[in-house]
Amino acid sequence: EHIPYKHTRMSPEESIKKSQEYYQLMNQRRSIRFFSSDPVPREVIDNVIKAAGTAPSGAHTEPWTFVAVHDPDVKQQLRSIVESEEEINYTKRMGSQWVKDLKGLKTNWVKEYLTEAPWILLVFKQAYSLLPDGRKRNHYYHEISTAIAGGILLTAIHTAGLVTLTSTPLNCGPAFKTLLQLSDNEKLLLLLPVGYPASDATVPKFSRKPLDKIMVVV
Amino acid sequence: EHIPYKHTRMSPEESIKKSQEYYQLMNQRRSIRFFSSDPVPREVIDNVIKAAGTAPSGAHTEPWTFVAVHDPDVKQQLRSIVESEEEINYTKRMGSQWVKDLKGLKTNWVKEYLTEAPWILLVFKQAYSLLPDGRKRNHYYHEISTAIAGGILLTAIHTAGLVTLTSTPLNCGPAFKTLLQLSDNEKLLLLLPVGYPASDATVPKFSRKPLDKIMVVV
Ligand SMILES: Cc1cc2nc3c(=O)[nH]c(=O)nc-3n(C[C@H](O)[C@H](O)[C@H](O)COP(=O)(O)O)c2cc1C
Ligand SMILES: Cc1cc2nc3c(=O)[nH]c(=O)nc-3n(C[C@H](O)[C@H](O)[C@H](O)COP(=O)(O)O)c2cc1C
Repeated sequence: EHIPYKHTRMSPEESIKKSQEYYQLMNQRRSIRFFSSDPVPREVIDNVIKAAGTAPSGAHTEPWTFVAVHDPDVKQQLRSIVESEEEINYTKRMGSQWVKDLKGLKTNWVKEYLTEAPWILLVFKQAYSLLPDGRKRNHYYHEISTAIAGGILLTAIHTAGLVTLTSTPLNCGPAFKTLLQLSDNEKLLLLLPVGYPASDATVPKFSRKPLDKIMVVV
Repeated sequence: EHIPYKHTRMSPEESIKKSQEYYQLMNQRRSIRFFSSDPVPREVIDNVIKAAGTAPSGAHTEPWTFVAVHDPDVKQQLRSIVESEEEINYTKRMGSQWVKDLKGLKTNWVKEYLTEAPWILLVFKQAYSLLPDGRKRNHYYHEISTAIAGGILLTAIHTAGLVTLTSTPLNCGPAFKTLLQLSDNEKLLLLLPVGYPASDATVPKFSRKPLDKIMVVV
């Protein structure tokens, strides 16, 4: 069933102003790798996940699960899993070009933020769901849809005055799944520590590509 | 080189309020398939693409190209390409389960919005870039990074009071590439018509999953 779509129109001037302000706000976002352990209210975490859940999805399948980890023991276990896999990535799995490409970020396999940040959000994509009669419902474009939801999640975290790091822990999915008792249709897409930056947090110094390097008008 | 990260802290109360308001704003977004041809200023399009360009990306590779199509002839050509591929999808390629899964959306292979909407944004992901010495630089996680940028783009479009439809035209990439003379490293990820809804625009009636169906707290 289709229903009328109600829309209140903004003036072009207001559109220009809002889009300018939103760009400036988003342009202040940086990936933070040094966290304070100061608490963040559960309500804010609920709200940013609700915002992520408004994302579009192929055939409205809403193919995502957000796991918000707050428990210190579980965070410690996540950290152990990530650090042991990352050590393999840095020293063996990924090769010297990967290590070189990451050099500017000064990252390594020690991830203190996984136990420091008050919340660790894990974003899982669902390849399919089960219908009441037990048949599988295919989730078209579940990875793209969930990554789009991840993008909306980042904007919500930033709008709420919090910081995060977008990360894709390599090869940690299976161990996370066991730890968190997830279903077979769920695969890890993103891991996001969420909280406040440490008072002495630093970020890699770099610039973003100017508009004419990313946009073509036809 | 790392530099200090400057951060102004919001009070928890303000965080709760901002996150609540942002959720409510985002929850009003819907995918629109019926467009008005009313013009949208170029400046707004520039700003929403600038916002998308602030997205995080694997190893800061910024692996995206945004093509903003305004020219009526090019829009007509895009439309012809999409409609002929979509007709094959509906009648032959995708099978009856796909057609059934899409039924609630009342979509078909005629896409008037591709010539009605004042702007069509094409989002391309770049698998690699070429270094000055001609070697290839691998873009880690370029699809996830570009889809995250797509999510930020959607929030910017919505914040600016405009509407869009998230779509992933199947099999249209090669024809688009020829039409727009893109490089070999670029692949189509999303196609987004951008503008105002037609005055009689309708949307499928549905609800979104409640928080407890998408979130697990540990
Ligand atoms: C990756 C992706 C691909 C999509 N492809 C199409 C498409 O080809 N045609 C279409 O009409 N809608 C498409 N949609 C839109 C979805 O049908 C829509 O997001 C979903 O029904 C939820 O509706 P909403 O966006 O109004 O919340 C797509 C959405 C996503 C995220
Ligand atoms: C898909 C994806 C995966 C990423 N993986 C990691 C990671 O594993 N570790 C890390 O420190 N940063 C990771 N990043 C963060 C990027 O390094 C960061 O976004 C980029 O350097 C740009 O910096 P900015 O986010 O501050 O703009 C990832 C980003 C994306 C989008």
